[in-house]
Amino acid sequence: MSVRELVVLGTASQVPTRHRNHNGYLLRWDGQGILFDPGEGTQRQMLRAGVAAHDIDRICVTHFHGDHSLGLAGVIQRINLDQVPHPVTAHYPASGQRFFERLRYATAYRETVRLTEAPVAGGGVLAETPSYTLEARRLDHPVESFGYRLTEPDGRRMLPGRLAAHGISGPDVGRIQREGALGGVALEEVSEVRRGQRFAFVMDTRLCDGAYELAEGCDMLVIESTFLDEDIALAGDHGHLTAGQAARVARAAGVRHLVLTHFSQRYGEPDEFARQARAAGFDGELSVARDLARVPVPRRAA
Amino acid sequence: MSVRELVVLGTASQVPTRHRNHNGYLLRWDGQGILFDPGEGTQRQMLRAGVAAHDIDRICVTHFHGDHSLGLAGVIQRINLDQVPHPVTAHYPASGQRFFERLRYATAYRETVRLTEAPVAGGGVLAETPSYTLEARRLDHPVESFGYRLTEPDGRRMLPGRLAAHGISGPDVGRIQREGALGGVALEEVSEVRRGQRFAFVMDTRLCDGAYELAEGCDMLVIESTFLDEDIALAGDHGHLTAGQAARVARAAGVRHLVLTHFSQRYGEPDEFARQARAAGFDGELSVARDLARVPVPRRAA
Repeated sequence: MSVRELVVLGTASQVPTRHRNHNGYLLRWDGQGILFDPGEGTQRQMLRAGVAAHDIDRICVTHFHGDHSLGLAGVIQRINLDQVPHPVTAHYPASGQRFFERLRYATAYRETVRLTEAPVAGGGVLAETPSYTLEARRLDHPVESFGYRLTEPDGRRMLPGRLAAHGISGPDVGRIQREGALGGVALEEVSEVRRGQRFAFVMDTRLCDGAYELAEGCDMLVIESTFLDEDIALAGDHGHLTAGQAARVARAAGVRHLVLTHFSQRYGEPDEFARQARAAGFDGELSVARDLARVPVPRRAA
Repeated sequence: MSVRELVVLGTASQVPTRHRNHNGYLLRWDGQGILFDPGEGTQRQMLRAGVAAHDIDRICVTHFHGDHSLGLAGVIQRINLDQVPHPVTAHYPASGQRFFERLRYATAYRETVRLTEAPVAGGGVLAETPSYTLEARRLDHPVESFGYRLTEPDGRRMLPGRLAAHGISGPDVGRIQREGALGGVALEEVSEVRRGQRFAFVMDTRLCDGAYELAEGCDMLVIESTFLDEDIALAGDHGHLTAGQAARVARAAGVRHLVLTHFSQRYGEPDEFARQARAAGFDGELSVARDLARVPVPRRAA
């Protein structure tokens, strides 16, 4: 399965609205599902978005404010109620271990699933799988917050002209890919690097090095833009980004598809977030997230 | 203010559905608001139902299964975020004190409101106010569960014919009401008892004495009917009621308005719950609860 898409479960910061649930995102990455920042009500949003408890393999929590984590309790109970057959791993700031435990054991239920607690201390590589490496970087928020990044290992794209010039065809193409050379021809002579896809999830934070590092070269960046630019002072006070700031991170990092989300309830129509992102010079693909949207990760760059 | 109504916030047992959030109910009783069993997502359902954090004076939790209590975390955080100006009291089974604390302190937030923990140990009278006495009774469920009951103190209804016969009119009517007698005429001679209103909230439970005691003589009974009668064995196994059982409790107790709720997702249309309640012989007012409904407490009996 090669589906790689973001399923938006909720997009509100701090308080939910009629049209926006608290935060929540499922990243489908081949056959895996990674749930980011489940706010309260994520369990019900999953139902509305066609996401099952079985779809979750990994949970990544940026920080322990309620809008990013209260939904953990319901999601964990639901994973157990549905007797998900595979283990699930949860990443979250190690400094919030007590919060994770309170949410994990918030009320009485029967544990049926192996849930591995994998607290994040300093950041760095958290997991390596055949289809991605998962890393975390520290962000800058009033409570400790980590952003996450998935990097697919680079592959190689075969070049038909070069293969033909060397007389390689049929089963030999697979052989040189597997073995790295064939009859004196190196794989590098008949192929080029196919860069792996990169995805980052950045919230909540002020502008900081971690945000830029996570975003660097990403095919998709999901980033908080709680405020509009006119409220930049408020954003700074509360440890958040504006639409323009988020877009400048994306532009500097060469992001291909920018997803703005985590909006303050104080704003009405979301178009202004897109306008300010464009005004800040971001000219790639741009989505202003809405609940229950599905956003495909861009195809690998040529 | 004399509004007395039930605001239904959610009606699903165990798992939410597209049309039913997890449990949750606000009882408006004059100027007071009593929140019963806030399941996950209650914070957002409040918004949809026009209930503000300020409207909550008291919280009553029957038991610590997630569908009855996971919403506590969000409600408590929202009460504090909105800086509700009055104190709030929470009642819940004392055996679940650890669960209450985990939900109260589930994630980082700033406490601004005085929230009094009032755990229920054996049952009995929990609070007396001018407009109601609050009591709890133990129910019968796999985890300790208490039902709740509000009883308004009886008042007296003045009888115009008797007043006239004794020549009592104008300001003297108020005087005899306040003082209990006037010029040798006792209040009892010119008035009759006006029974106070009674409300009960019963879930989750098998049939038990507590359920009957709570329901006795109630103007409104909100009671779980998780199952239909054909699944009575399942109901017994899991410590729940069927529609017919709930209706028999209401009939035996002389309930005026029966509100059935807390439905299993296995059933489609809710009409069958009403049909089975009627088949069980309940002939008072009947509501099959739906999310966001408002159900007035019946006016005082004549």
